[in-house]
Amino acid sequence: MKVLQEKITKHGQVISGRILKVDSFLNHQIDPELMHQIGLEFAQLFSSDEITKIITIESSGIAPAVMAGLHLHVPVVFARKRKSLTLNDDLLSSTVFSFTKNETNEISISKKYIKENDRVLIIDDFLANGEAASALAEMVEKANAKVMGIGIVIEKSFQKGANKLKDQGYRVESLARISSLADDKVTFTSEKMEELI
Amino acid sequence: MKVLQEKITKHGQVISGRILKVDSFLNHQIDPELMHQIGLEFAQLFSSDEITKIITIESSGIAPAVMAGLHLHVPVVFARKRKSLTLNDDLLSSTVFSFTKNETNEISISKKYIKENDRVLIIDDFLANGEAASALAEMVEKANAKVMGIGIVIEKSFQKGANKLKDQGYRVESLARISSLADDKVTFTSEKMEELI
Repeated sequence: MKVLQEKITKHGQVISGRILKVDSFLNHQIDPELMHQIGLEFAQLFSSDEITKIITIESSGIAPAVMAGLHLHVPVVFARKRKSLTLNDDLLSSTVFSFTKNETNEISISKKYIKENDRVLIIDDFLANGEAASALAEMVEKANAKVMGIGIVIEKSFQKGANKLKDQGYRVESLARISSLADDKVTFTSEKMEELI
Repeated sequence: MKVLQEKITKHGQVISGRILKVDSFLNHQIDPELMHQIGLEFAQLFSSDEITKIITIESSGIAPAVMAGLHLHVPVVFARKRKSLTLNDDLLSSTVFSFTKNETNEISISKKYIKENDRVLIIDDFLANGEAASALAEMVEKANAKVMGIGIVIEKSFQKGANKLKDQGYRVESLARISSLADDKVTFTSEKMEELI
């Protein structure tokens, strides 16, 4: 997705050749118009999959997921990382290790929001090691619903997550795929392929 | 906002005459089309205020805030409740006590996303005791920016938050105002006023 690549190139900051900081438009400050375009792109990619529900994880997944839900006309559910007094139903739970926060979180979704017939699109902001997406997929399967695909805003293709999820049989659609952050420079997968030709 | 009141009446659950659970469309499962309408309503209410930035707090404030940002064409910043490895800039911080979670959180926004000239709209899902909105307003003022108003999806008017914020001189616009949850029944302020006439 060209507009997203341009935004990453212009505003992304690489830290220590490993972390891509995009908090000026995605995960601290949010660019609503970019999110709207991202939501439309996801909706088009999964338009023939009869999606009935989108799930994501708080907090940075919410904006792209809600925009995709707007275009696909389906509800969005976000998994919570912490329990709330008002989230005390029967829960689907799973465990996620976050490398950026260096901690393990139990994440939960109320059972009543994923039903057996649901055709679920999982959306998240980043895909690196695949921890969050795997945990979300696990919850969908615990509910006997079907994972129709995984939509990712930014994939760090040099980490293992995308391949791991594809090996598990999931369709992964990433709007920007980064092949390297070496030398604190963002290289997209397509660029690298062009270099190789 | 009629469509919101109807949604609350139909899908809200009152617990112990005190807590209104709206997790089927606002703070666990999200109705993207309702959020879109809510965003439009906020944009219209603050259309002449030359808003340059919206701030909110993770996680349930994000969806309505991003939709308001879409209609007002301004970026949205969400305050984080926990520090992230990628949020290590100079921070504006404040403290919020959450009655529903029974805990105190330090919330933070990177200084670079609120500037002295900003005309800020604060948006949140609920207003009860006003803890979150006050903390957000405090951060805006620490940055020498201007709070143009506070947009709330659901106000529990029988708690002290709305009056406290108005007494402090803030404009508060709530799309649904609840005067009572007694007997586990939702009564809106306008209904109560009609009963009194």
